[in-house]
Amino acid sequence: MNATRPLIGIDWGTTSLRGARLGASGQVLESREFPRGILSVPPGQFEAVFHELFGDWMQAPDALCLISGMAGSRQGWQEAPYCPCPAGFAELGQHLLWLQTGRIALVPGLSCLGADALNTPDVMRGEEVQIFGALQMTGCDSATLVLPGTHSKWVQVQGGRVVQFQTFMTGEVFALMSHHSILGKTLDLQGAFDEAAFLQGVDQSQLAGSILHHLFAVRTLGLFERLSPAQLTSYLSGLLIGEELRHQALSSRTAPVILIGNQALTLRYTLALQYLKVPCQSRGAEATWAGLFALACSFATT
Amino acid sequence: MNATRPLIGIDWGTTSLRGARLGASGQVLESREFPRGILSVPPGQFEAVFHELFGDWMQAPDALCLISGMAGSRQGWQEAPYCPCPAGFAELGQHLLWLQTGRIALVPGLSCLGADALNTPDVMRGEEVQIFGALQMTGCDSATLVLPGTHSKWVQVQGGRVVQFQTFMTGEVFALMSHHSILGKTLDLQGAFDEAAFLQGVDQSQLAGSILHHLFAVRTLGLFERLSPAQLTSYLSGLLIGEELRHQALSSRTAPVILIGNQALTLRYTLALQYLKVPCQSRGAEATWAGLFALACSFATT
Repeated sequence: MNATRPLIGIDWGTTSLRGARLGASGQVLESREFPRGILSVPPGQFEAVFHELFGDWMQAPDALCLISGMAGSRQGWQEAPYCPCPAGFAELGQHLLWLQTGRIALVPGLSCLGADALNTPDVMRGEEVQIFGALQMTGCDSATLVLPGTHSKWVQVQGGRVVQFQTFMTGEVFALMSHHSILGKTLDLQGAFDEAAFLQGVDQSQLAGSILHHLFAVRTLGLFERLSPAQLTSYLSGLLIGEELRHQALSSRTAPVILIGNQALTLRYTLALQYLKVPCQSRGAEATWAGLFALACSFATT
Repeated sequence: MNATRPLIGIDWGTTSLRGARLGASGQVLESREFPRGILSVPPGQFEAVFHELFGDWMQAPDALCLISGMAGSRQGWQEAPYCPCPAGFAELGQHLLWLQTGRIALVPGLSCLGADALNTPDVMRGEEVQIFGALQMTGCDSATLVLPGTHSKWVQVQGGRVVQFQTFMTGEVFALMSHHSILGKTLDLQGAFDEAAFLQGVDQSQLAGSILHHLFAVRTLGLFERLSPAQLTSYLSGLLIGEELRHQALSSRTAPVILIGNQALTLRYTLALQYLKVPCQSRGAEATWAGLFALACSFATT
């Protein structure tokens, strides 16, 4: 796979902004990161911020820039409507929202409808690029991918297309419980990660009963001094990640689950999945650049 | 049942303080309520606050005062150690913590050990008095009682004794989601309660899958304008109460569930239980006074 034009990949999220200049075979030539997520950009200022931070890269006359993430949301640069699943490279390429024709485009997010009676919708923005990147890197065209985070995504890919996915508010609930709930009083958030306490939480969450009940144990295990404040933080993390995993049909899996995300988080999911005897492998942030590169190549040839 | 001495019942919680002067057959002669929960009282000032607000009632030379709730916690007036389950009136009476011998006592909370491998502890403070009060009022000595709230309690009573209970953080999670999560942006918290949307949430939460996933639908149903901001608030409430109910063995029940709590909240639980075809009845705040009165009578005769 080769690109015929210099590609600039941008991952513009809610709280951070990353960019990379890619070579003809997709290698990262140079990268930049700024705390300039869309929440920090006043309406109407996206173009100015973009040129301030990446204008030099865009001076190459044939430069192509693809931007993924929340920049394409209603609160971003411009709204790029969700591309409905099933969707692959081809559909993403067809749904690009061109800000400058042929030069700068927003990559749309994906939407899908749940299998429940109400067909409850689900959405992602930015993860779709990481998914297609990871598929390129692993050479798979059918897989279950997990993107842990504030809003974790579980994604089913068949024949190179995302057919279905589900969001779990695991990371956000962990943050709310840690910082705003009564449990926060019991926790030491700066303490070292405790693997045993984490797995104790994973184990507990697999039992019958609701997470709404299991969470209260973080308080009582502290009250009765059964776990230390630092251990309780790891236990809480284990409970929530365990609750997310509990609802997946993991036992019947043959191929490994592919995890995509930062190292600290994918490590926790790896520990939990190994504990539940589910094979997995993980990919880091480079999946974003691989995905944007693959996308550029794909629609360049259509 | 008759008390031989004038009884003053106090329910001293985290954020509020209620008191009642009871007659010889348990009737409320006079009641008072103050926004003086234990969080508002500096350490060492509990006695002074008590005498400021209830000193006139205590002037009767044979007055007896029983105080339940968080006043007996580590952060309260003085710590009254939890009374382990199984526990009934007799055990509560034996574990009273006398602040003035024979005149003013703290009622201890209850603790129990879960049936899981770790015997995870659970605790309550204040609810035990409401439970025994409701049993007196209903004439039951074996029942399942539910006390909805910030931390809902599901309680099993057999032969007049609490044998087991479980806490669910339902109310607190609702508050966190409403005020601190991304879902809050989608909600109208002042809007009228919408019964249909509430029951839609109850229904959704009974499906396979995790509440960590179902919660995200509050965002997407708003994004796709399937429910209005006011409906979404009721939907969120239904999801969480439904998640709590889903993990109870309700279908095999013969006797009605007894709900204890304020009217707005017991109404929601009643709607959800009726929807799931589970018979229930409800009792209000008067259960506290009935419980303290029964407790006073019980240990007065031992």
